Amino acid sequence: MHTIDLKNYGFRTDLVIEDITEDLREEEVKSKRYENNGVIVEEMEISDSGSKKLNRKAGLYRTIIFQDVTDKDQYKIVEDTFIKVFKKFLLDCNLKETDSALIVGLGNDHSTPDALGPKTLEQILVTRHLFQLGELEKGYRNTASFTPDVTGTTGIETGQLIKSAIHVVKPNFLIVIDALKANNMERVTKTIQMSNTGITPGSGVGNNREELSYESLGIPVIVIGVPTIVDLVTVVSNTVQYIYKHFSYKIDHIDSAKEKLIPSHKQNYIDYPDTLTKEEKAEILGMIGNLDDKDVKELIMEVLIPINYNLMVTPKEIDFTIDRLSMLLGQGINKSLHENFKATK
Amino acid sequence: MHTIDLKNYGFRTDLVIEDITEDLREEEVKSKRYENNGVIVEEMEISDSGSKKLNRKAGLYRTIIFQDVTDKDQYKIVEDTFIKVFKKFLLDCNLKETDSALIVGLGNDHSTPDALGPKTLEQILVTRHLFQLGELEKGYRNTASFTPDVTGTTGIETGQLIKSAIHVVKPNFLIVIDALKANNMERVTKTIQMSNTGITPGSGVGNNREELSYESLGIPVIVIGVPTIVDLVTVVSNTVQYIYKHFSYKIDHIDSAKEKLIPSHKQNYIDYPDTLTKEEKAEILGMIGNLDDKDVKELIMEVLIPINYNLMVTPKEIDFTIDRLSMLLGQGINKSLHENFKATK
Amino acid sequence: MHTIDLKNYGFRTDLVIEDITEDLREEEVKSKRYENNGVIVEEMEISDSGSKKLNRKAGLYRTIIFQDVTDKDQYKIVEDTFIKVFKKFLLDCNLKETDSALIVGLGNDHSTPDALGPKTLEQILVTRHLFQLGELEKGYRNTASFTPDVTGTTGIETGQLIKSAIHVVKPNFLIVIDALKANNMERVTKTIQMSNTGITPGSGVGNNREELSYESLGIPVIVIGVPTIVDLVTVVSNTVQYIYKHFSYKIDHIDSAKEKLIPSHKQNYIDYPDTLTKEEKAEILGMIGNLDDKDVKELIMEVLIPINYNLMVTPKEIDFTIDRLSMLLGQGINKSLHENFKATK
Amino acid sequence: MHTIDLKNYGFRTDLVIEDITEDLREEEVKSKRYENNGVIVEEMEISDSGSKKLNRKAGLYRTIIFQDVTDKDQYKIVEDTFIKVFKKFLLDCNLKETDSALIVGLGNDHSTPDALGPKTLEQILVTRHLFQLGELEKGYRNTASFTPDVTGTTGIETGQLIKSAIHVVKPNFLIVIDALKANNMERVTKTIQMSNTGITPGSGVGNNREELSYESLGIPVIVIGVPTIVDLVTVVSNTVQYIYKHFSYKIDHIDSAKEKLIPSHKQNYIDYPDTLTKEEKAEILGMIGNLDDKDVKELIMEVLIPINYNLMVTPKEIDFTIDRLSMLLGQGINKSLHENFKATK
Repeated sequence: MHTIDLKNYGFRTDLVIEDITEDLREEEVKSKRYENNGVIVEEMEISDSGSKKLNRKAGLYRTIIFQDVTDKDQYKIVEDTFIKVFKKFLLDCNLKETDSALIVGLGNDHSTPDALGPKTLEQILVTRHLFQLGELEKGYRNTASFTPDVTGTTGIETGQLIKSAIHVVKPNFLIVIDALKANNMERVTKTIQMSNTGITPGSGVGNNREELSYESLGIPVIVIGVPTIVDLVTVVSNTVQYIYKHFSYKIDHIDSAKEKLIPSHKQNYIDYPDTLTKEEKAEILGMIGNLDDKDVKELIMEVLIPINYNLMVTPKEIDFTIDRLSMLLGQGINKSLHENFKATK
Repeated sequence: MHTIDLKNYGFRTDLVIEDITEDLREEEVKSKRYENNGVIVEEMEISDSGSKKLNRKAGLYRTIIFQDVTDKDQYKIVEDTFIKVFKKFLLDCNLKETDSALIVGLGNDHSTPDALGPKTLEQILVTRHLFQLGELEKGYRNTASFTPDVTGTTGIETGQLIKSAIHVVKPNFLIVIDALKANNMERVTKTIQMSNTGITPGSGVGNNREELSYESLGIPVIVIGVPTIVDLVTVVSNTVQYIYKHFSYKIDHIDSAKEKLIPSHKQNYIDYPDTLTKEEKAEILGMIGNLDDKDVKELIMEVLIPINYNLMVTPKEIDFTIDRLSMLLGQGINKSLHENFKATK
Repeated sequence: MHTIDLKNYGFRTDLVIEDITEDLREEEVKSKRYENNGVIVEEMEISDSGSKKLNRKAGLYRTIIFQDVTDKDQYKIVEDTFIKVFKKFLLDCNLKETDSALIVGLGNDHSTPDALGPKTLEQILVTRHLFQLGELEKGYRNTASFTPDVTGTTGIETGQLIKSAIHVVKPNFLIVIDALKANNMERVTKTIQMSNTGITPGSGVGNNREELSYESLGIPVIVIGVPTIVDLVTVVSNTVQYIYKHFSYKIDHIDSAKEKLIPSHKQNYIDYPDTLTKEEKAEILGMIGNLDDKDVKELIMEVLIPINYNLMVTPKEIDFTIDRLSMLLGQGINKSLHENFKATK
Repeated sequence: MHTIDLKNYGFRTDLVIEDITEDLREEEVKSKRYENNGVIVEEMEISDSGSKKLNRKAGLYRTIIFQDVTDKDQYKIVEDTFIKVFKKFLLDCNLKETDSALIVGLGNDHSTPDALGPKTLEQILVTRHLFQLGELEKGYRNTASFTPDVTGTTGIETGQLIKSAIHVVKPNFLIVIDALKANNMERVTKTIQMSNTGITPGSGVGNNREELSYESLGIPVIVIGVPTIVDLVTVVSNTVQYIYKHFSYKIDHIDSAKEKLIPSHKQNYIDYPDTLTKEEKAEILGMIGNLDDKDVKELIMEVLIPINYNLMVTPKEIDFTIDRLSMLLGQGINKSLHENFKATK
């Protein structure tokens, strides 16, 4: 049963915060967390030793965690936070205000949860052609944009197309926007991650892939993403955890008279800790209750293989949420890159 | 644990074929099944006694079951089948070739899996205004169309808007297109259902709902739909069944030397029968293995209540599939209603 | 040559400011003009006697004249002006802050210059369903929206559909958004007109039309529109005027040595007055130079009849401009109707 | 007045058939014209001497002339004709059935009349990635596609982006789809032109332009286009011709009693020959009546310079017509390039 390598099946999370476990040492991962009006920012730096331990590239990571960008007040807080974090991140990556940028949107405009990249690009202000004509006032950076579309639509390997566009534009750094995959239902559309560790477009699809990174291109590659889907296997595996939390709560409140008055749909088990013993788990879920998380996931993956690749789990309001997130990232990037940028929207 | 009424939570399937159990008698449900090039057609008539037993309205139901309308060859077979079934269904509903129709598209154009109705309407040929001008050649029926949009966008109860449009148009019958909900992941985007038993638009959302049916309107109401999503609870409950099938298969093939040569991702458990004993189920899934299907579903519903309403499960290619299905239904309806209809697409 | 009645051919302007001639008296049309940061507002009240003289309905008209809403600074000035003018206009129409509104978007979403109504509606906040559930905080008005689509798409007369929606919603007043037709190329996408005199949807298309007005509905009907196209006949007729201005300029500057140094494409004839004598016009344009404006237009209409109905003249950036105008009108209406409205965009 | 060079102002037609005058000799332009069910095909070969005389590149040109692709019957005839002409054209360009193609769509998806290229590309079948995986059955050619977007959106010179994509894909030939400009209102959306003479993307916009042609790339460059707009100057100039035709008709029928019974909007002047004498023209249009066509155009251009660049003339149904034309070109190209292509649409 344990012969399946999760990495080959693309079940790996794109979110660095989902990798972090308690036994990491300061030399491996330096991290700092702060809050801005209820929005949480997590700064992380993974060292070479941390990189080996986590099997994730060394470099700088920033994570912004929020609840709901379709709420107008929170939208503004998240946008403000993004601008502050992104401007500082550019400095942390040793980029100057006069450095030129090529902004690339990965993904498929015709598939809602995968359209984050192309839709964000529609918001991006480009100035490179105006620089060439000498027509631009002060306070604007030299920017160009490129939407390579997906290989299924073009027949061309995405990484190669981007490399050829870099060859034409010769930017000082690259910004890549992409939809990400989470390992936890509760993070979907509620997290923005940025990093300077590069990306391999279309990971998991073919063999002929090109990494886009400082190492391969000689310029900094900043990737900005938001998780927009989770895997069916993830959802089912998460549910096993929720079942434990549910019974933990039930057992802990078994004699609470007050509890019996709360209707069950008002009892929130999801934030409750898992307090079950091994034996209780085995009683509730039998043989499966004896497996650890990783083995549960592998079993479920094996069970769902015949249908997993055809289904995805997304928020019900995904169309509207992707619109808001693309607006936020696009306008946030514009305001971060150009000192004098004025938004209409 | 057993106090939740599934009906109040909208987990009920819209598909009549998912209701059918083996203990139904001929007086309750008459049914007939045939095949057309691999596409299956199921004709059903639910009597008053069957209606009580199944808790589903009495009347005529037709179900078309297929694999993949994004395949060009199968698209044509499904379209042909749809036209044959729908033309005969109109006769079965005692409708004449000269009867006028109002075609209504339910759902939200800005939410991909809910856009089936509005997108199908974009394909519909309307002739009512040409009839009024006397400008139409023979071979065309009098048709009008109406897209009421959703209450969240208009602030108006959908059923009332449709009734007021019927009052203006005064059609001989109504055709309603809507996205449906299935109780089984494998039916999503792979089933077309038509019935003459009416619909209550926006079921499950508010109280102020209007049924659209022969009883309430005095004209036949034909509903055509395709399941486009399943519920998170459904997906997890289905997985419990798949786990049983998986172990059934494993146990039955435990000594098969040949089997060991087949890589696990090539072993298809999903179509394998559940051959486990009660004891085996309890061993594998503990307490949960002791529950019957309905109780498993209620437990999972209770566990997932805090997140269930925000997530949905759809096929990964849903945007493209909805395009194809809308084209198929729209053009199929045109070709069924108008003898002389010529399609460009 | 003079037997064609311009009114039958739909060449009449929708803009009241294009009707105004110098010989109107204070009893016929009261008007007031002021400026807000370069944006001009024209307030007008047409009396019954003015109505007869101008052949345009008596009532209140407001016109906002600007240059370019695709410019970010000007967009904000125009939006501010719109909100001030519209709020005051609602009071001038004797509407209270608690009066409920139905907002209707006329036009065809699939034809860019005609999509102003449907696209504005996408921005409109509706609250009627929340009022019914008692879920709305203070500072919001009861609003609903309705997009009837065009008769060519539905087969149903637009005015009748709107009347039936009014019957369901029972609002205190109606707001109708529509794309207008101008008689002058320079006003296209540069003018917002609002009036309380009603509208006849689909004017010029059929006979079976329903006027929407206080007289026919018993509630105030406010129409807000922007001209988005001009007619081919209008464009060619306008050019005759430009030819006169061009030669006026040339003749007046014939001996100016300085003038000869200005390249002709920098000489702006369009704002220059027509100073030609009758004889000069006849010399330049022969028989046509002898005709007055109305007769020139009729001649050109007669010449272009075979092709006029198939062509339209619009700004080259019309897709983008319609996006900005719809955003401006939609958000402007929201901010005017709801005291506590917060915009994300 | 005659100092403006028309070529600098982009008023030049893209259509070779609008260049053809009667005094061309067989050594300059070889041409052949035939008909297919009312659709006209014009084959042309311009020699080096013809090239000099016409100021248009030497090579092969094919023109398909029709009335209306929104008519379902004519759509099919035009598609059939396109496929026949295009397949033969590929052979005339010495291309083999196994030669690989890169198909490029020029223009701006967000501006309706300029969206022909990107919208056609949405229909194009690509196979290059399947060839690389060895997954393709026989009867398919190796194809890839690329949509460079416009410089205003990307900041990057279009020709350079295309060259860099060619460098990645290394196709045997290039197909470029673009919206064209006509010099005559009656050709708009009614003509398909194909040529092997290359194109300079974004002609008329900047200086930094790259020609795409056999000479610059070393592979055949086939350009397929449809005129979708005319210039305001063109429309007004055309009207002067129509005025002459109108008076020619009037004078020729002055005593016809029968004529007087035909209402003027049923009299079609546009196909009537211009039979006026010089004196009659001068009488009707004065000084302007004395100018030849080219001088009239220059005068009107000078008059309209201040507004010309902001306005365009298109058919009223342009959104719908562009949809049909993109479908026709996309599916027509697929059926021409791939022997075994099966269309769903």
